[in-house]
Amino acid sequence: MSDTAVPIALGPTSTDLLTRAITDAGAQVTDLDRARALVWNAGPDGFPELPESVRWVQLFAAGVEEFLAAGILARNPDVVFTSAAGAFAGSVAEGTMTLLLAGVRYLPEHIRARSWRQHEFFPHIGTLRGSTVAVVGAGGIGREVISMLEPFGAQVIAVNRSGRTVPGPHVVETLPAEQLPQVWPRTDHVVVAAPATADTRHLIGKDELAQLKPHSWVINVARGSLIDTDALVAALRDGTIGGAGLDVTDPEPLPDGHPLWDLPNAIITPHDSNPSRLRAAAFADHVAENVTRFAAGRDLIARIDTTAGY
Amino acid sequence: MSDTAVPIALGPTSTDLLTRAITDAGAQVTDLDRARALVWNAGPDGFPELPESVRWVQLFAAGVEEFLAAGILARNPDVVFTSAAGAFAGSVAEGTMTLLLAGVRYLPEHIRARSWRQHEFFPHIGTLRGSTVAVVGAGGIGREVISMLEPFGAQVIAVNRSGRTVPGPHVVETLPAEQLPQVWPRTDHVVVAAPATADTRHLIGKDELAQLKPHSWVINVARGSLIDTDALVAALRDGTIGGAGLDVTDPEPLPDGHPLWDLPNAIITPHDSNPSRLRAAAFADHVAENVTRFAAGRDLIARIDTTAGY
Repeated sequence: MSDTAVPIALGPTSTDLLTRAITDAGAQVTDLDRARALVWNAGPDGFPELPESVRWVQLFAAGVEEFLAAGILARNPDVVFTSAAGAFAGSVAEGTMTLLLAGVRYLPEHIRARSWRQHEFFPHIGTLRGSTVAVVGAGGIGREVISMLEPFGAQVIAVNRSGRTVPGPHVVETLPAEQLPQVWPRTDHVVVAAPATADTRHLIGKDELAQLKPHSWVINVARGSLIDTDALVAALRDGTIGGAGLDVTDPEPLPDGHPLWDLPNAIITPHDSNPSRLRAAAFADHVAENVTRFAAGRDLIARIDTTAGY
Repeated sequence: MSDTAVPIALGPTSTDLLTRAITDAGAQVTDLDRARALVWNAGPDGFPELPESVRWVQLFAAGVEEFLAAGILARNPDVVFTSAAGAFAGSVAEGTMTLLLAGVRYLPEHIRARSWRQHEFFPHIGTLRGSTVAVVGAGGIGREVISMLEPFGAQVIAVNRSGRTVPGPHVVETLPAEQLPQVWPRTDHVVVAAPATADTRHLIGKDELAQLKPHSWVINVARGSLIDTDALVAALRDGTIGGAGLDVTDPEPLPDGHPLWDLPNAIITPHDSNPSRLRAAAFADHVAENVTRFAAGRDLIARIDTTAGY
């Protein structure tokens, strides 16, 4: 550890994994009062007053609504904040594909079966091959999902804020969010991976669901508020769509007795597509990458845009 | 349809889809007695005596044991037989990935859940990222599975008869079948996609299962006989492996009351990863490709090697 190693504070909990990530990236772990950056691996409660020396704060969460709501970014206007957005993208995308494939291939009924119901199942088993999947929100998770869809032979309509083209041989179109109304009648399935903002609340409600197909699966790995739960329950109950795979719900946690628990075409993964045992290692990789960039004066990954709210 | 169009017979059932596949490929559908080839879309029962003019027979099935057992290939030693191997590879590979992801991500227990069991589930959810998957049998299905595994960040050990290198940036090694004993202790998961031959019967039994890991999933989409069912049931019951995803079983169909139906870490898809509603379209594409090749005098896809038995 040389004298020129960048001093970085780590709190509130020091872990071997994060200490090693910081030092392996050529920086050193120090006290906050002489640090140039802070890696903060908890929620907004107990977030410290920052000394002037701190120019960058790395947060642990991918979604940072709570830090914004607590006024922490507003109190430190000259500090760059980065989230963990992207760090967990691989695991969340893997969970997304699990839900989408399970739905399209009629897996829930297979898992409930206690006898060989081949001919009964045949007509219900679909394929991603030749299907169109709309990926709404083409950030870290969305881009990982898009790359995973390619070898399955699915076509992708990507939707992002700017409409700037998302690359991929199978991405047939990239649309800006304003043109979402064009997407619903054209797609087979929908993956929701957009940030939760005032603009994206109830992005999918009764009218949007009505334009999907009887075999369409809707997968939500973003935030529960992006889908109108009552409208979704009605569509699932009436069979106007194929099903829903939900890693996030509204309300969350989903209370016992909620109708979603009993619908055979709803699959709930209780916000566990980024499980704690995989998270620590993925966050350490993310910290190491940003520490390397910070030391070299390069742009940081997942810088929070306080205006957009993510 | 020109006079020079290659005459091809279609039986026993003529379908619009296959007729169109043949004519779109520039050939014409004729009676068997003046045909140069036969597209046979049924099992071995009722298979006709072939006139001398027929040089090629396209069969509908991917596995052709029954045609070999019925002596049909032996009776026609000068005729090239092709199977449908590869035609259904995409759908079977998609089913394979569904089973593997469902297993690794602990989906069966999620589907059974009627309440928000996030913290209980966390420790059970694994990831393909950074894991090693052995793909035993690198034919059409195996190669599709290998390409699907790449964006998930899994490493692949491919196993085939020759040991000839299977390409892919994530294929860390290709081993010949004789070296399978090296594979079991080194891999996280196993996908069985090898043909059923005398050599592959009970390829996975008690000794092989004992060398896998407590989180290992074994997926079989080949034939039930490749796995020793009793040994598998014991391993699943004792939890010495993570679980099994079986599209094929031994016996098949799996009878009611078989222990596999009640094991929470077994997922059964009743030989439906290539469901009838997807099969016809995939076979028509395969026929069109082979008719084009036959007319041009080029090598046919999925030519049956009568010595190897597939």
